Amino acid sequence: MKSYPDSIKHLIEEFSRFPGIGKKTAQRLVFHILKAPDEYAVHFSEALMDMKMKIINCSLCGGITEQDPCNICSDIKRDETLICVVEDSSNVFALEKTNSFRGLYHVLGGILSPLEGVGPQDLNLNSLLDRVKPQGEVVIATNPSIEGDATALYILKILKDKNIKITRLARGLPVGGALEFTDEATLLQALEGRTAL
Amino acid sequence: MKSYPDSIKHLIEEFSRFPGIGKKTAQRLVFHILKAPDEYAVHFSEALMDMKMKIINCSLCGGITEQDPCNICSDIKRDETLICVVEDSSNVFALEKTNSFRGLYHVLGGILSPLEGVGPQDLNLNSLLDRVKPQGEVVIATNPSIEGDATALYILKILKDKNIKITRLARGLPVGGALEFTDEATLLQALEGRTAL
Repeated sequence: MKSYPDSIKHLIEEFSRFPGIGKKTAQRLVFHILKAPDEYAVHFSEALMDMKMKIINCSLCGGITEQDPCNICSDIKRDETLICVVEDSSNVFALEKTNSFRGLYHVLGGILSPLEGVGPQDLNLNSLLDRVKPQGEVVIATNPSIEGDATALYILKILKDKNIKITRLARGLPVGGALEFTDEATLLQALEGRTAL
Repeated sequence: MKSYPDSIKHLIEEFSRFPGIGKKTAQRLVFHILKAPDEYAVHFSEALMDMKMKIINCSLCGGITEQDPCNICSDIKRDETLICVVEDSSNVFALEKTNSFRGLYHVLGGILSPLEGVGPQDLNLNSLLDRVKPQGEVVIATNPSIEGDATALYILKILKDKNIKITRLARGLPVGGALEFTDEATLLQALEGRTAL
């Protein structure tokens, strides 16, 4: 039995390391590149290296950007007394898509996870203390998971003497979801957090 | 609303062009690369360009290889009177995995498809006529689709005066499949092609 040439095997392995990409998908992607014109691979490769070279972390919020400070932190129309704390820089863009948050962000760069050995010292927490403004508000927008909630509680603890309002994103039914397919934990939160009509 | 930095947007677009990769998956892959160490992107990029530079088409079978002729065509233990015709070079490796075919391959590099403007002149057919041996056998292993069957019939037509045996892969129930979930077309072929026990 003859297997793929080495250079193909190597690229299949590299593709297989991506999250959610198995061996079969990797093979399909590699054969797609093989069949495409040479310029395609060159463009792709250049786009990849270009991104890796240009993207840096914003020295203020810790998010990803091409110039420091990022265009959110340097936007004078943003409300700097309102800071939304997120786990990851991709969360910033998810929230920006709502087109309704007018404050600044603070990217933790991870989540407290004793199992994976991630402690408070591994997160971008110290600069958060410097950034919060008296009488301001911090919206904690960590993921609705055990680690996300533990991180939210930790942030609550370190900020509680600061005389600021601390909130977190509402829990409840996702829009477009069906009650019968909603899990018990979410339904419980939706009941507990019920609002006046 | 602030969107992704340009270099990230650009890479997301490049990833979205892959078959089966939508916008959301592309975003996930890009953020995976962003979080990974720089060497990762360099390795990936190098593996890609390396493959594009090294892989050529075998001048005999038309398959992909790093040296010409490919290591199947240059294997003296292969039966050169037995030629298996496939659509695509990835099919060669699929058949090689069965570890049972001892002949050579012939890669068409496509399939007859009037809708997409692919005619006989676009396929690697001329060299097939030169390669077939009198009293030999050609196994047509095109996909079990309308285009695959049309291509098989076309090959049958151009080879019928050559005094060779022409066969095609058997149709029937896939191993591990369940009769109740098998479509009618497959069941019909399985019935028509029933074999003595």
